Amino acid sequence: MTFNTALDSIKIYEAGLPIELAVRKYGIAEYEVVKLASNENPLGASPKAIDAIMKVAQNAHLYPDDSMYVLKESLAKHFNVTSNTLIIGAGSDQIIEFCIHAKANHTSKVLMAKTTFAMYEIYAKSVGAQVIRTSSHEHNLQEFLEAYKAYKPAIIFLCIPNNPLGECLDSKETFEFLKQVDSNCLVIIDGAYQEYAKAKDSNKALNPKALMEAFPNVIYTGTFSKAYGLGGMRVGYGIANVKIIQALSKLRPPFNITTPSLAAAVVALEDTEHLQRSIENNLEQMPLFENFAREKGFKFTPSYTNFITYYLEYPLDSTEVAEYLFKKGMIIRNLASYGLNAIRITIGTHVQNEKFFALFNTYLKQK
Amino acid sequence: MTFNTALDSIKIYEAGLPIELAVRKYGIAEYEVVKLASNENPLGASPKAIDAIMKVAQNAHLYPDDSMYVLKESLAKHFNVTSNTLIIGAGSDQIIEFCIHAKANHTSKVLMAKTTFAMYEIYAKSVGAQVIRTSSHEHNLQEFLEAYKAYKPAIIFLCIPNNPLGECLDSKETFEFLKQVDSNCLVIIDGAYQEYAKAKDSNKALNPKALMEAFPNVIYTGTFSKAYGLGGMRVGYGIANVKIIQALSKLRPPFNITTPSLAAAVVALEDTEHLQRSIENNLEQMPLFENFAREKGFKFTPSYTNFITYYLEYPLDSTEVAEYLFKKGMIIRNLASYGLNAIRITIGTHVQNEKFFALFNTYLKQK
Repeated sequence: MTFNTALDSIKIYEAGLPIELAVRKYGIAEYEVVKLASNENPLGASPKAIDAIMKVAQNAHLYPDDSMYVLKESLAKHFNVTSNTLIIGAGSDQIIEFCIHAKANHTSKVLMAKTTFAMYEIYAKSVGAQVIRTSSHEHNLQEFLEAYKAYKPAIIFLCIPNNPLGECLDSKETFEFLKQVDSNCLVIIDGAYQEYAKAKDSNKALNPKALMEAFPNVIYTGTFSKAYGLGGMRVGYGIANVKIIQALSKLRPPFNITTPSLAAAVVALEDTEHLQRSIENNLEQMPLFENFAREKGFKFTPSYTNFITYYLEYPLDSTEVAEYLFKKGMIIRNLASYGLNAIRITIGTHVQNEKFFALFNTYLKQK
Repeated sequence: MTFNTALDSIKIYEAGLPIELAVRKYGIAEYEVVKLASNENPLGASPKAIDAIMKVAQNAHLYPDDSMYVLKESLAKHFNVTSNTLIIGAGSDQIIEFCIHAKANHTSKVLMAKTTFAMYEIYAKSVGAQVIRTSSHEHNLQEFLEAYKAYKPAIIFLCIPNNPLGECLDSKETFEFLKQVDSNCLVIIDGAYQEYAKAKDSNKALNPKALMEAFPNVIYTGTFSKAYGLGGMRVGYGIANVKIIQALSKLRPPFNITTPSLAAAVVALEDTEHLQRSIENNLEQMPLFENFAREKGFKFTPSYTNFITYYLEYPLDSTEVAEYLFKKGMIIRNLASYGLNAIRITIGTHVQNEKFFALFNTYLKQK
């Protein structure tokens, strides 16, 4: 059986390892495993969202409201937009997938930073599009502009702040860049970690309404998976001009999020206290990771997200470090699949973080 | 902004109306609304699956195990296959989407019955493929064979039993047909309602293992949304030759089902008692719908699913009937979007069904 040739070049996405694997493989008790690998909220979901899931469990047999009326109304209010400028996805990943399928094809080019969220490339390649990357690992808008002019991509990805490196473009420079992009080029601004970025520095805050009104070719994507603590529920959204939303809606499969996810997202959005606590924990704990890096001499980029990336140097090897920690029940993210000798660690609770520092310290002393 | 031209021909899928809409629009109390529109299990999910969702709610912030190890092992055991011949999707819809994206493109043809699940066409059109339909509404394998020879489609869809009409091909004739199809044509056998069909008539039972072993070009898709009562959780699966599974896996987004869905599906598969009760309710209640149709002179096809389709005749109009019932808090499916003057009713509990008969009777008397 032959398949579309576009598939030949796709490497399967390497997801963060699950807790179950450490339990299965090394017999570590589940409660002893600490997962700082997938940028989940270490405080968990909002207790109100957990209640909502438990309450709606008895409706597990019922498809969700496919119009997603209540969630859209809530998001519309939250972002001060109308609900026809919103689309809901199974994580913001799915919104990105819709964008690629709507706009790109085997004749298109898709522009992104050298090191950014791996799914952009996977989705682009799935339709046979050519991936263009800037030369710097981190986002550099001058390089983006040059590449844009040289290649005329159908789609540009800006990950603000950037996963897996943590740097974050200023809102102002982003707007300046967007002014120079033609209205037929779809710019996807991935704001998965925006809640953390804007809490750290208001210059990083992106306003989806302002973006949409200034640029009919821009879509802002957000998620409930990070600061809102619903990674396991798979809910994301896109905010854009009605015409973009209408096009993407043609590609949205019916019932693309689950009944409990819909209930949980509505409640999580309202629980601003839990959001605030989550962001504060992140702001408090991040400096401990920066201090640890300085102490050990690891390079890192100041992070505007809920993770930090340590660049390792010979003889330290990210794969070896990740494996060592994994066997001890500490799951972090090895960035070898991104071509980097680096590890990405989610900022956990104080207890989780101290455990990471202790284990990593022990490893470093042995080396 | 221009989009891929394939989008021009896509009509958005019309999902069954949600209970919330009847509540919002007509102020009917939620508990009074009966939904017999989306072929959900009227007995609900397995109580054990509901428990599993409630227990795992506190892990809503954690991504699911992306390898889906436990669910795959359970399904592998259930179907007596190895887990590398399995892929999990957000409903079997998503498996169908992977198949289309892996195999079809703007140069391909996709063959299906004249009246069958609407998403086949939507997915096919999303990649610009040409949809070929047999001339009979219901599946007719002679017509399929002729169309196959004439058009050489890249993909053939067989919906066994067929949604939204209810007829069901025999396993034997299906195997005979498959023998005549070239190994480079991907045949998707949608078994979403197989649990109901095989309980009614063992000649309709399809064995995914036997299919896979006899035909390396066939994929069987199944779902937890119907007999297993997890429509709101979005879990389906595909079973096929390892090479097909490997290709589709390249297109599977990470974490494509939720953490509670994974927990619920594993438990639902084990609860054979609940499955049995659900199937028995269906077998007991279906004859009431057949009798009602005979009484009123509606044509219908004997159904091998958990729904029945009534063909209406002038002056009865399916849109008017559906609207009338909707206003009374009875949601059924109008098949006007399929080009039919017909309504599809999910077989509910005895109480729900009696309510449907009473309301429809009242309507018919008024006409």
